[in-house]
Amino acid sequence: MNAKEVEKLLTEVKKGETSVEKALEILKDFPYTDLGFARIDHHREMRTGYPEIIYCAGKSVEQVAEIFSVMAEKENNVIGSRANPEMYDAVKRITPDAVFYQMARIISLQKKKPAVPESLIAIITAGTSDMPVAEEAAITAELLGNNVLRIYDAGVAGIHRLVDKLPDIRKCRVVVVIAGMEGALASVVGGLVDKPVIAVPTSVGYGANFGGISALLAMLTSCSTGVTVVNIDNGFGAGFAASMINKMK
Amino acid sequence: MNAKEVEKLLTEVKKGETSVEKALEILKDFPYTDLGFARIDHHREMRTGYPEIIYCAGKSVEQVAEIFSVMAEKENNVIGSRANPEMYDAVKRITPDAVFYQMARIISLQKKKPAVPESLIAIITAGTSDMPVAEEAAITAELLGNNVLRIYDAGVAGIHRLVDKLPDIRKCRVVVVIAGMEGALASVVGGLVDKPVIAVPTSVGYGANFGGISALLAMLTSCSTGVTVVNIDNGFGAGFAASMINKMK
Amino acid sequence: MNAKEVEKLLTEVKKGETSVEKALEILKDFPYTDLGFARIDHHREMRTGYPEIIYCAGKSVEQVAEIFSVMAEKENNVIGSRANPEMYDAVKRITPDAVFYQMARIISLQKKKPAVPESLIAIITAGTSDMPVAEEAAITAELLGNNVLRIYDAGVAGIHRLVDKLPDIRKCRVVVVIAGMEGALASVVGGLVDKPVIAVPTSVGYGANFGGISALLAMLTSCSTGVTVVNIDNGFGAGFAASMINKMK
Amino acid sequence: MNAKEVEKLLTEVKKGETSVEKALEILKDFPYTDLGFARIDHHREMRTGYPEIIYCAGKSVEQVAEIFSVMAEKENNVIGSRANPEMYDAVKRITPDAVFYQMARIISLQKKKPAVPESLIAIITAGTSDMPVAEEAAITAELLGNNVLRIYDAGVAGIHRLVDKLPDIRKCRVVVVIAGMEGALASVVGGLVDKPVIAVPTSVGYGANFGGISALLAMLTSCSTGVTVVNIDNGFGAGFAASMINKMK
Amino acid sequence: MNAKEVEKLLTEVKKGETSVEKALEILKDFPYTDLGFARIDHHREMRTGYPEIIYCAGKSVEQVAEIFSVMAEKENNVIGSRANPEMYDAVKRITPDAVFYQMARIISLQKKKPAVPESLIAIITAGTSDMPVAEEAAITAELLGNNVLRIYDAGVAGIHRLVDKLPDIRKCRVVVVIAGMEGALASVVGGLVDKPVIAVPTSVGYGANFGGISALLAMLTSCSTGVTVVNIDNGFGAGFAASMINKMK
Amino acid sequence: MNAKEVEKLLTEVKKGETSVEKALEILKDFPYTDLGFARIDHHREMRTGYPEIIYCAGKSVEQVAEIFSVMAEKENNVIGSRANPEMYDAVKRITPDAVFYQMARIISLQKKKPAVPESLIAIITAGTSDMPVAEEAAITAELLGNNVLRIYDAGVAGIHRLVDKLPDIRKCRVVVVIAGMEGALASVVGGLVDKPVIAVPTSVGYGANFGGISALLAMLTSCSTGVTVVNIDNGFGAGFAASMINKMK
Amino acid sequence: MNAKEVEKLLTEVKKGETSVEKALEILKDFPYTDLGFARIDHHREMRTGYPEIIYCAGKSVEQVAEIFSVMAEKENNVIGSRANPEMYDAVKRITPDAVFYQMARIISLQKKKPAVPESLIAIITAGTSDMPVAEEAAITAELLGNNVLRIYDAGVAGIHRLVDKLPDIRKCRVVVVIAGMEGALASVVGGLVDKPVIAVPTSVGYGANFGGISALLAMLTSCSTGVTVVNIDNGFGAGFAASMINKMK
Amino acid sequence: MNAKEVEKLLTEVKKGETSVEKALEILKDFPYTDLGFARIDHHREMRTGYPEIIYCAGKSVEQVAEIFSVMAEKENNVIGSRANPEMYDAVKRITPDAVFYQMARIISLQKKKPAVPESLIAIITAGTSDMPVAEEAAITAELLGNNVLRIYDAGVAGIHRLVDKLPDIRKCRVVVVIAGMEGALASVVGGLVDKPVIAVPTSVGYGANFGGISALLAMLTSCSTGVTVVNIDNGFGAGFAASMINKMK
Repeated sequence: MNAKEVEKLLTEVKKGETSVEKALEILKDFPYTDLGFARIDHHREMRTGYPEIIYCAGKSVEQVAEIFSVMAEKENNVIGSRANPEMYDAVKRITPDAVFYQMARIISLQKKKPAVPESLIAIITAGTSDMPVAEEAAITAELLGNNVLRIYDAGVAGIHRLVDKLPDIRKCRVVVVIAGMEGALASVVGGLVDKPVIAVPTSVGYGANFGGISALLAMLTSCSTGVTVVNIDNGFGAGFAASMINKMK
Repeated sequence: MNAKEVEKLLTEVKKGETSVEKALEILKDFPYTDLGFARIDHHREMRTGYPEIIYCAGKSVEQVAEIFSVMAEKENNVIGSRANPEMYDAVKRITPDAVFYQMARIISLQKKKPAVPESLIAIITAGTSDMPVAEEAAITAELLGNNVLRIYDAGVAGIHRLVDKLPDIRKCRVVVVIAGMEGALASVVGGLVDKPVIAVPTSVGYGANFGGISALLAMLTSCSTGVTVVNIDNGFGAGFAASMINKMK
Repeated sequence: MNAKEVEKLLTEVKKGETSVEKALEILKDFPYTDLGFARIDHHREMRTGYPEIIYCAGKSVEQVAEIFSVMAEKENNVIGSRANPEMYDAVKRITPDAVFYQMARIISLQKKKPAVPESLIAIITAGTSDMPVAEEAAITAELLGNNVLRIYDAGVAGIHRLVDKLPDIRKCRVVVVIAGMEGALASVVGGLVDKPVIAVPTSVGYGANFGGISALLAMLTSCSTGVTVVNIDNGFGAGFAASMINKMK
Repeated sequence: MNAKEVEKLLTEVKKGETSVEKALEILKDFPYTDLGFARIDHHREMRTGYPEIIYCAGKSVEQVAEIFSVMAEKENNVIGSRANPEMYDAVKRITPDAVFYQMARIISLQKKKPAVPESLIAIITAGTSDMPVAEEAAITAELLGNNVLRIYDAGVAGIHRLVDKLPDIRKCRVVVVIAGMEGALASVVGGLVDKPVIAVPTSVGYGANFGGISALLAMLTSCSTGVTVVNIDNGFGAGFAASMINKMK
Repeated sequence: MNAKEVEKLLTEVKKGETSVEKALEILKDFPYTDLGFARIDHHREMRTGYPEIIYCAGKSVEQVAEIFSVMAEKENNVIGSRANPEMYDAVKRITPDAVFYQMARIISLQKKKPAVPESLIAIITAGTSDMPVAEEAAITAELLGNNVLRIYDAGVAGIHRLVDKLPDIRKCRVVVVIAGMEGALASVVGGLVDKPVIAVPTSVGYGANFGGISALLAMLTSCSTGVTVVNIDNGFGAGFAASMINKMK
Repeated sequence: MNAKEVEKLLTEVKKGETSVEKALEILKDFPYTDLGFARIDHHREMRTGYPEIIYCAGKSVEQVAEIFSVMAEKENNVIGSRANPEMYDAVKRITPDAVFYQMARIISLQKKKPAVPESLIAIITAGTSDMPVAEEAAITAELLGNNVLRIYDAGVAGIHRLVDKLPDIRKCRVVVVIAGMEGALASVVGGLVDKPVIAVPTSVGYGANFGGISALLAMLTSCSTGVTVVNIDNGFGAGFAASMINKMK
Repeated sequence: MNAKEVEKLLTEVKKGETSVEKALEILKDFPYTDLGFARIDHHREMRTGYPEIIYCAGKSVEQVAEIFSVMAEKENNVIGSRANPEMYDAVKRITPDAVFYQMARIISLQKKKPAVPESLIAIITAGTSDMPVAEEAAITAELLGNNVLRIYDAGVAGIHRLVDKLPDIRKCRVVVVIAGMEGALASVVGGLVDKPVIAVPTSVGYGANFGGISALLAMLTSCSTGVTVVNIDNGFGAGFAASMINKMK
Repeated sequence: MNAKEVEKLLTEVKKGETSVEKALEILKDFPYTDLGFARIDHHREMRTGYPEIIYCAGKSVEQVAEIFSVMAEKENNVIGSRANPEMYDAVKRITPDAVFYQMARIISLQKKKPAVPESLIAIITAGTSDMPVAEEAAITAELLGNNVLRIYDAGVAGIHRLVDKLPDIRKCRVVVVIAGMEGALASVVGGLVDKPVIAVPTSVGYGANFGGISALLAMLTSCSTGVTVVNIDNGFGAGFAASMINKMK
């Protein structure tokens, strides 16, 4: 319920077209309608191409399929993250337009094309094994309406691979750095590039990597300024935040 | 590209077989030339009002004072973070223009005023005890050339305090959320505001707070999109990253 | 009190120097008589419909089936938690009245209906993936003789979903909040509702969730008053404690 | 703003006493006024003796004193937890009625006496060193309007000390168990008493106690049903939750 | 067995239908009579020289002094562990016979000499810095009535220091091994000596020692058989357990 | 090389049958021969019924079978811990006398019967799920030549189950307490029984049990004296240490 | 040094004002020229037999096969670590010269034989279960051109097994010690041998081993000098570092 | 007891000057004399300039002074690590030649100058705050007889500071990298330099640095080959290990 509707209601009360009791009844649902404003805004955003996000992990194949079918009716864009092929098969049967990005584990349903700014998002990984997380970030950013520069396998053990690409990276508006093991790449990029860096620790590694803790702590304690961090293996979150910044006017 | 190739190129230049322009073009692609440029860019940035950052913790009073005096001569802006009153006393004796923000623990020396964009950075804390970290973020952002909207003590235990301020927060370009204990505020703000949220866990709390770990983990695993995280108590880092985003064109 | 003193007391009773009543009074204070009473009380409670609890995890299918068959003979109610379908098949063969709640992983054998108070227990989850834990709590509470209000998928990323339900929640006598990831929902509910809140962290999430630690720590350090916490994924414990409070006279 | 006020406003609009524009303006502030209802309720509760809670740790002496002086004017009851003698000295100078419970670290200002139910809260500690946390719980419960049964130093190393007191404990409506080291007391009490048990792990101990982690984990994984847990050393939280349950009708 | 049954029994005794002996026999099986016996046994042990143990840490000077004065009247032996000089001063004023072992942090009051077996307890430390923990173990064992062989500073970095003493160590009945840092000494001794080894990790070390965790984990995972472990820095517990084994008949 | 051989060598030197140089050469290899003395002692122990221990986990089926076949030839007793059925099948094919204790995961080859003392080892578990660890301890102790009193499922949630058995437990010479979850049983037994208690934390439980950490920390910080601890799930180590104490003369 | 300066230098070369040699000298100091040299050096090293390293874990079978085929064309030596049989099958199909070391999980392609120094690397394990890590270290060192002395199953529980081999170990130039569980072997070897010791903690063990943490912490806090540590189970890293030291001139 | 003494003893036996029994008696003490040979070797090393190492932390001022005075008499070199000024004052009173390196916390007594190889050890720090650890490493290496190249404050946030120094670093024989926070410098140096790198994590930082854990884990999981790690803040251990490698022939 938005301001105009309230105004209309008040006018009706004034004119006697709506009784005070009826208006009170309607307004009694209002308090949360306002937070509902947010919801309406949210709906509006969907109509303009902003997708609905579904975290598929921990949902059943049936639940995922059902959510997609509801969304498809509403002509919404949908991004289903952490999806598996079984989920996609079920979704596709109902909504044949759905697309599956296997490495990124994303099912996408795109009813309207979002506007795409000229500026780029750089997505850099330390190693080849970080690619699934990187693709999750990249596909997310692309589905949200961004162009992405992928630079994979540019870890600090061979720092020349990174340096070669610096001029391209510096032209981007925001940089996503994805690394497992010691996660040093975030600090190195943060020290070389004067752009917001979103660091994604990955669980790539073994032993004292502890499922990504080594990279996570390293990125949080980075001596480089302008580095912020998301959860371990959270390519989706990094792609989403990078898109927010890149699409900023 | 190795020494022999460079020698060959120089010889060709000498002989006139290769023009100076062509040689320069080739040397410009010399992979690591970039890095040298970076240093120059860096210096350039300083001259244009971008401050030098000094992490004062773990440095002696003498070291801090000396660094400020060198910077003062170079007409650079300087931000000394995690400084204490003794450091300020020593700095002030040499560079009387230096200013101390006690709660923020920042010594500032500002030789040139940075440009300030119209858009605001919102800095929100869950409790009063988070104020030192918030002030570190706010003063950092202000010294870097930003206007800041401070909203302190708006934790989720009394969520109406936050909701009252939502319209103001939504007008800001980027939001810094600072909370200790369970750090829930970051998720709540992230769910209500469609702006990049930089979350700062603080060490405020006791017991299972473990010096900020509870808030840190909560923020990293936030179910709200668009939330990125910096180190525990790292107000400086949040202020710096927020400024990068806010000053983006 | 030692054997000799008891002997002396018995002799006095025999001689009529001490009355039976007096001796009983003394022996009633016999420190550990109490414990014996407890066992009797316990038995009595079973007869009145209070179920026997069996933690099935780590027991063999045969052991679980045998325990149920013994209980069935004693006309006791039984709740078998953390059970799997194989266990249920074996139980059902012997005690065909047994019921299996698959999502809740509970096998129930109900010989007598417990009394049910009018007041409700609210069970709220942050996400759909928290449902198995929520159902464990809900079924446990129902089997113990309570009416349950289920509110699922009301996490703080879309706080309006929670706010819509506040009037209903406030009518309940005790609230169980179940959330994984950052577990912020417990604090938000605790801040909005003036009722005891039992928070259940779940292992839903990945990375810095560390199998439920992020939600656990967040709930323990909640800034909202009236929040107590049970083990990660411990829906049974929450349902049991909520029942204790709800059935209080 | 409550329902009656909205009704009044609507009636004024109907009568033309208030313009639609003016009403819209007022209602625009409404959404958060509703959550403000909570605030008003909250105020009402204060008038009926429900105290305002102040977490003094991390606040300056001046801040604490100022908050008390504001509350004193409003004739509210106030509980200041984790306070120190310096804070109390400052508070007392302004509000001489304030009382300091040193071991409990609580400053109390009680303008109205809360109603006290007949039922008791039992507060049991494992050792003498747990007394500060126990007193925090006990004083909190008493200030909120409860009678408390204190049983201190009844740890499982000498379990007869606990058993002696069982009859008294069983008469209470809710039990708070406070223990450091291995925290076994919570499980033992939970196994002997058919009442809600709120367990408070304390940081009493050394080495593998890790500041209370051993007791915390033990209490969370208790094999006894009906045990819920609060943060390490959180006597206040336990006293508050116990009061909620004890005062339940 | 409940009150009515006891009453019935008492009546039978009174009537002469049951003999005192028979009734006593029945009451002796009274399940928890045992526990009461334990208390009596305990008292008996005290009379025979078994000391009362007081954990002084976390108690006030006054509390410690008072406990000692009560014990002194009862002619009990007392061991006060983790005591400080202030506590001793207060104790001495009231009970001048009390003795203070400063390095061991023990106040002792010995009214009766315990019997001392011929067999020895070996107490071995890896380094000089482990001596306070070792002395706590040694003094505890001596006060409980044991002869102790002290071998200090025999760490594995210079394993010959240990090997020199092997013949003496092998003559002891039980071995206490005390080590910080990597705690390897416990495994080495356990591999060389065919006696029960009680390992005490100490907090000696820095960095990845984490306050004794490195030694604790090492001792728990020792590849040598016959090694059991007590808490970090728990010299008292090791001395007590070693005494139990050494005094075994 | 043993004392007799050295004596023989010296006699040969004296007689001139061996040159000084030759003897020196032989003795140069002597240092490790002495530790070899230990080895010879070790062999002697084997001849008297002391088994060779093999940790089978992490060894291949072939390796395990080969070790058993070598031992069988030497007429040694062997205990193979953490073995699986495949290993047993392979062992049995070569050494048909080998016995497999499935729940205890032990393969035993017993060529000589060890002497068995009259005193008993009590092995107590908190729950049924702790039985595999308990059986590992019990079978180990029995194979080493001890009689074992098994008391399973006597956890503190129903403490009367333990108290009923106290008289039997008190007759044992050493007590092994095995518990998962909060591990409180070790403290309770340690407080009731004046015998050495070897506590075995198990990984039974979920959530904040963290694979046995909750029980481990609880046991290490036990407030009861005389409790020592072995590694999580280390039934073998507990059985071995208990045997050492029980067989002590 | 910036583009203009380089242009000026080139112009001077062209004009003959600066000799080619002089210009080369200047450009050689070009700060980041070094990095380029590194790449060239690196290539040179490959041509001389220094292998390319591929971390196969987390790469697809196809990716691994493709990398090997590219390398084979370049006549490079290649070491593929953490490889599995499927990867080897794919590699072999394309490059039949490739060799698979199954226990070491290494695929090797050796086009040129590296020079082998006379000095040895000792590789010592505590137990048989540490062998896969040890073989990874040994094969790595051998492929890099070293002779290796393998001493397996020499743990401190039977220290004579180590002492027997000391003379051989002392002849080696560098020692790799590989141990799980409590990792004490590193300290013992470090105390007995005056050579650099590279310690490799392994994940062998259970319970408080926590996947290798016990050994890792023990090795890091070793009281023996000259011990450095690599990641848990990182046989490759230890073999590589040992080779670096062994091949030093 | 050394080889000559044994030879003398054998000769005496041969001559009949010593009885076989007497010789056997003496040789019975021999086994550990041999490890005593090591001790004698050790003494020899001391005579050649190899210092005795004393870990002063956890020792009393008197103990430290006494050890130095004993060593001074034996004309040994001594390095006392982790010493404080009070210790030095006490040492100096007795042995006036002792020198104190305050930042390195080392007391040195140098009776003979060790030989110094031509090759250098590079010691690089990420920040100024790492200097105390670096000086501990540098002074240790120098006292052991090495020349050291100090490069301080060359962290990855400004990687050009490192690259400038690469030519010098590459000339060293072994590199010590010292860094706190995210410890990325070790990986970067390891990727750029083909020399053994000994990485020292420091406790410099705050929050998620957790006293050095972030840097420790990062260094252990470094993606660069040839990096080994010592304990947090263990400058002494790094200097010692680097010296071992640098002085290798």
